[in-house]
Amino acid sequence: MESLSVALGERSYPIHIGAGLLDLSELYRPHLAGGSAALITNEVVAPLYLKRISKTLAAAGARVTEIVVEDGEQAKSWQTLERVIDALLAARCGRDTLIVALGGGVVGDLAGFAAAVYQRGVAVLQVPTTLLAQVDSAVGGKTAINHARGKNMIGAFHQPRAVISDVATLDTLPERELRAGLAEVIKHGVALDAEFTQWLERNIEKLLARERASVIHAVRRCCELKARIVAADEREAGERALLNFGHTFGHAIETGAGYGAWLHGEAIAAGMVMAAELSARAGLLSRPDAIRVKNLIARAGLPVNGPALAPEQLLALMSVDKKAAKGQVRFVLLEAIGKAALHGGVDERQVREAIVAAAQ
Amino acid sequence: MESLSVALGERSYPIHIGAGLLDLSELYRPHLAGGSAALITNEVVAPLYLKRISKTLAAAGARVTEIVVEDGEQAKSWQTLERVIDALLAARCGRDTLIVALGGGVVGDLAGFAAAVYQRGVAVLQVPTTLLAQVDSAVGGKTAINHARGKNMIGAFHQPRAVISDVATLDTLPERELRAGLAEVIKHGVALDAEFTQWLERNIEKLLARERASVIHAVRRCCELKARIVAADEREAGERALLNFGHTFGHAIETGAGYGAWLHGEAIAAGMVMAAELSARAGLLSRPDAIRVKNLIARAGLPVNGPALAPEQLLALMSVDKKAAKGQVRFVLLEAIGKAALHGGVDERQVREAIVAAAQ
Repeated sequence: MESLSVALGERSYPIHIGAGLLDLSELYRPHLAGGSAALITNEVVAPLYLKRISKTLAAAGARVTEIVVEDGEQAKSWQTLERVIDALLAARCGRDTLIVALGGGVVGDLAGFAAAVYQRGVAVLQVPTTLLAQVDSAVGGKTAINHARGKNMIGAFHQPRAVISDVATLDTLPERELRAGLAEVIKHGVALDAEFTQWLERNIEKLLARERASVIHAVRRCCELKARIVAADEREAGERALLNFGHTFGHAIETGAGYGAWLHGEAIAAGMVMAAELSARAGLLSRPDAIRVKNLIARAGLPVNGPALAPEQLLALMSVDKKAAKGQVRFVLLEAIGKAALHGGVDERQVREAIVAAAQ
Repeated sequence: MESLSVALGERSYPIHIGAGLLDLSELYRPHLAGGSAALITNEVVAPLYLKRISKTLAAAGARVTEIVVEDGEQAKSWQTLERVIDALLAARCGRDTLIVALGGGVVGDLAGFAAAVYQRGVAVLQVPTTLLAQVDSAVGGKTAINHARGKNMIGAFHQPRAVISDVATLDTLPERELRAGLAEVIKHGVALDAEFTQWLERNIEKLLARERASVIHAVRRCCELKARIVAADEREAGERALLNFGHTFGHAIETGAGYGAWLHGEAIAAGMVMAAELSARAGLLSRPDAIRVKNLIARAGLPVNGPALAPEQLLALMSVDKKAAKGQVRFVLLEAIGKAALHGGVDERQVREAIVAAAQ
């Protein structure tokens, strides 16, 4: 097992990475102050891992309440959140209950937000079982549900007590979700770390083959990069926005295509191609480097073109994105591979051209 | 204008108390970073003060979005919260929007919670227009909505940027709401400050007559007491729970009677009588002091008896209250006038007896 830390003062917490961590009750015991745990997962993950982790929590001394929600992005809704809250109250979970989020990004966001607002906030452990969640969404305390007018519009910053990433759970991950997770892995390299990008260009096939040592290396490197940024800018006042590389386009793609039609990672993949294209058109990134980004994404088996939406439709969806400041959309653009920066005042014509070019 | 501060490090904020503060644009201007303000109020307060404060905000340079919700406790619901979020998104309010909560405790709790979760948190100003909100609920960052299974079960700690208490707005407050506010004033005295309790025993009629200097003194003293406690224990890990004196019984009364049948302050008044009775039965408080509490509450024109509910029904409702730790209800009891303390392991028989005795 490898461990690193997200340094946030008295809210610092560890990230544990390794195979078989679902069974190590000593990882869960320190967080069970009240003796009560509420395990939140979805109907796809439940048959695979619910009983196993439930047993581990019981061995750690917990009274366990199991809450299973529907699969897919639609679980990030008012309705599902309300059902979770209702189940917590029905089980008489108090303020000292530990919520355990077992699943991918959707479960982590939903359960994390439930933990943020249940009785004004209870503790949460993130136990991610998808590559996307292990390398990105489970780390950093962002939680949210969606609104018809935009993704993640209702949420909170609520840091977990620990992130427990059992990489063995990735063995059961559908191929499409593995690739979606690779989009966020690629994002970490392309936006923040030129050396890691080169490593990815050499090892992308090993990751697709789920070669364990390579997977652990990628999860660890992404967590290191993200932990450093979150520690410096927990609430996304500055640097943390760089982790949104590809997300302004990506969120618009997800919303425009209808939640669930595209996986988050797939939308981010196409969004990164658009953002790299825009970076090149804005004169910030060399054309060969923009092509490197597109090629790496293509090699990961991810979409490099957006959905069949008019550029105007995507543009309209982007202007309500949370990154819009004073009515103007700001973009995370690449100044080089591994060097993303926030740019305001981007020419809307160039944004439209980038969308059109990326659709070819 | 009198000002004091809630000391919470970089989240410290001022409380301004005085007559005519709704019109002072300089109190609002420093908080309008993004130039956008969303004014949330209800249909009773709107005709009285909405246009006035809207004009003040515009004079301070804000683009103002007005959101009016229904009156009463039922506004602390998922449905109303969703409508508020929808209105914010429809008006394209970004992360730099300032939410202004204009109204009583319900509006403050709802708008504060909307601010806590909108796009993972935006700034909020509390502009309380009821005595209850000015002396209690607008200070300290507690925000919440209700759930059918219990009051304030979904919420967040989200401190405002400032509290602006215009005591002139109390002139339009219905008599019943003034009295409900006095319940929280009495709570501050009885739970925390023997001297202030004596002052209240001498001046309760002046407060009922809305004598301005007395009202300002009471608002200021309550804010001082509350600010000191919130600074020491923001998230209610300890001392802050003392501010819940009367609330374990009171919340059960509110829930049992159906939201809205009793005003919060009325339920807290009857709850304080029960809690004082329990304190006496537990041998902590002298019988004469328990009678002093009851008399002061009666002189304020507040109920000293609970609703027509079986004691078992109230007991069942109390066990899901947020103050239940490890399945056991803890009570804030009086050890003397002005000296509340948290007690676990209270004999359930005595609790039932106190409910029955308080009903006589």
